[in-house]
Amino acid sequence: MDYGAEARHSLDQIAERKPLVHQMTNVVVTNDTANLTLGFGALPVMAYAPEEVAEMASISQALVLNIGTLSAGEIEAMLIAGRAANEHGVPIVLDPVGAGATRFRTESALRLLRELRITTLRGNRGEIGALVGVGEVRGVEAVGSEDPRQVAATAAERFGLTVAVTGEVDIITGPSETLAVANGHPLLGRITGSGCMATAAIGIFLTAGEDPTLQTALALATYGRAAERAAEGNPGPGTFRTRLLDEVAALGSTGVDGLRISAD
Amino acid sequence: MDYGAEARHSLDQIAERKPLVHQMTNVVVTNDTANLTLGFGALPVMAYAPEEVAEMASISQALVLNIGTLSAGEIEAMLIAGRAANEHGVPIVLDPVGAGATRFRTESALRLLRELRITTLRGNRGEIGALVGVGEVRGVEAVGSEDPRQVAATAAERFGLTVAVTGEVDIITGPSETLAVANGHPLLGRITGSGCMATAAIGIFLTAGEDPTLQTALALATYGRAAERAAEGNPGPGTFRTRLLDEVAALGSTGVDGLRISAD
Amino acid sequence: MDYGAEARHSLDQIAERKPLVHQMTNVVVTNDTANLTLGFGALPVMAYAPEEVAEMASISQALVLNIGTLSAGEIEAMLIAGRAANEHGVPIVLDPVGAGATRFRTESALRLLRELRITTLRGNRGEIGALVGVGEVRGVEAVGSEDPRQVAATAAERFGLTVAVTGEVDIITGPSETLAVANGHPLLGRITGSGCMATAAIGIFLTAGEDPTLQTALALATYGRAAERAAEGNPGPGTFRTRLLDEVAALGSTGVDGLRISAD
Repeated sequence: MDYGAEARHSLDQIAERKPLVHQMTNVVVTNDTANLTLGFGALPVMAYAPEEVAEMASISQALVLNIGTLSAGEIEAMLIAGRAANEHGVPIVLDPVGAGATRFRTESALRLLRELRITTLRGNRGEIGALVGVGEVRGVEAVGSEDPRQVAATAAERFGLTVAVTGEVDIITGPSETLAVANGHPLLGRITGSGCMATAAIGIFLTAGEDPTLQTALALATYGRAAERAAEGNPGPGTFRTRLLDEVAALGSTGVDGLRISAD
Repeated sequence: MDYGAEARHSLDQIAERKPLVHQMTNVVVTNDTANLTLGFGALPVMAYAPEEVAEMASISQALVLNIGTLSAGEIEAMLIAGRAANEHGVPIVLDPVGAGATRFRTESALRLLRELRITTLRGNRGEIGALVGVGEVRGVEAVGSEDPRQVAATAAERFGLTVAVTGEVDIITGPSETLAVANGHPLLGRITGSGCMATAAIGIFLTAGEDPTLQTALALATYGRAAERAAEGNPGPGTFRTRLLDEVAALGSTGVDGLRISAD
Repeated sequence: MDYGAEARHSLDQIAERKPLVHQMTNVVVTNDTANLTLGFGALPVMAYAPEEVAEMASISQALVLNIGTLSAGEIEAMLIAGRAANEHGVPIVLDPVGAGATRFRTESALRLLRELRITTLRGNRGEIGALVGVGEVRGVEAVGSEDPRQVAATAAERFGLTVAVTGEVDIITGPSETLAVANGHPLLGRITGSGCMATAAIGIFLTAGEDPTLQTALALATYGRAAERAAEGNPGPGTFRTRLLDEVAALGSTGVDGLRISAD
């Protein structure tokens, strides 16, 4: 498959349709993911109130759920938004930030997976591992040594959806295939929200095509490619963070050469 | 009128008095608007708790209300803060983010307009249009084609206040005159919070003079002028965002030439 | 004492152990303090829900409490987290943002000081002064003229902990000694969250050594030294903010020469 051409097609779709991406995310990264969404040419909207989330999710083209600073009330609102998204065929991406670090996070993520039809689940090896009963999380970082392929495969089968286990190489496992994405840069690990931005990128790309596994891989590869460009010259993390947004916004014009996606 | 001299006077007043600007704003932009406030030489304070907002608003020189990530509880707290501001003669600027996108947003904004004496209402064409029953909003972006002058005039009369409908040209309509501001740059549309920062700028300038329509126009023009300078060389949105803050902070020394304000 | 060698030792400890720093902080600065934490080589985790904060604090190496956008519920959650931290010997740093500006802030900070065993209390002269009954705060900025040494000494004795009163020169008073830190730069006063980041830095350093007074001084000095480097060439506040993160992350390689710590 010509992944470059597929990525180009998705980016063009996003630029043309300007999809609305409803994000219920954590307070740490909300500014970053909103800017990333604009950078990709989509429109972010953050809405959390139970009075409005069903309405907002219904008019959106994707819903991003991220439990990074969850509360009991926010999980209820996510369920309301998610049900509305499911009713209207709006794809949902879930980021179970810190699953495994506390019972509340693990159980809340599992509840969202049980009660909603999620399209893509993205997390690090530790977080996804915690949801299927393997591995270790320290705060919000994976520290175990389990095999990401195994974790992704187990979670994809258990929950019946596309799973992206991100790390040095991202493993994306869907119902019929597994893709590996080798784009990215270690500097992503030096800024907060790099995983949450990856999740937002997936939400954006899910609006651009019918195959969640492919769109998830394209999202991670283009985002990772932008990170590689932003890291040129090895800047500090502050400068890298600024340039990352520049490079995401430039994907439309710099093109999407250099994507490293492979069937796994 | 010599708008450059007026802008200079307002900036000097702000630098001299260091007004305290109490902001109840959304979680996406709060860091940006706090930095913008410091950039203009004013002091930001964010306070949301019903136990303290009346006290904080009372000691402030302006109150900024922004419903971008509203909740039922936050609207109640805004009413408490707003009543205290009204009692103490503290000007209020309201940003009805996403009005028209959900009933909850439209109704909450209308409630604030009904129960408080707002000084300036700022939004895009779609948001203000939704409050007076015309136009369309998609998420938090205006997508309709209604005439901003008509929208501003209708809202100014309906609510009896100064209305700023921002867009390619900003239209500011007060009780006795309408001003148009042509400063600004398309890159503002590529970063999140550019509208919310415009609203914060208005709050800051409302502390510097008695005529809300004039101060609103000066705020939008100086902010837009800083954006023009930040956009020189056509940087990516990440770099633009960084430079925007630099240029706002430099307004005191670079001067305020190039303001494009006109009676409409 | 060779403070440079001590700072080097602490930075090495942090880089080696990657301590988890649980932060319950305000919505304005959470992205900044998370990035700062990663910059120092530690791992940030933000968790606020009463259902999980005890568990998260227990597995952390430091707990940062910051009341910048407090609510009644958040204070309760801070007490839960703080008790867990106390039980597990996890050091706590408290930032009483805006104490003195409203009764709710002053009383909430005093309650945390009364019910928890805090390791270091950091604030500006006005905030700490308000907690011991002297001085004046305007919003979140100190405007009085009281002597920071007196304020620090009074608070250290009153509350029985290490107190850092930050300003042009930071005064750190512990049970047996007072240190002064002269590192820093006026540009820190032009960006939001500079005080909150100082508090987070203290939390990070408290994981690296047994003497809170020394670690608090080392944190403020290294952070202030990074700010001095970031301010070279006198950039605008937007660029300074970006570089500050770069320079914090570079402390490991640029070394920590130029620390200006002295016994007071």
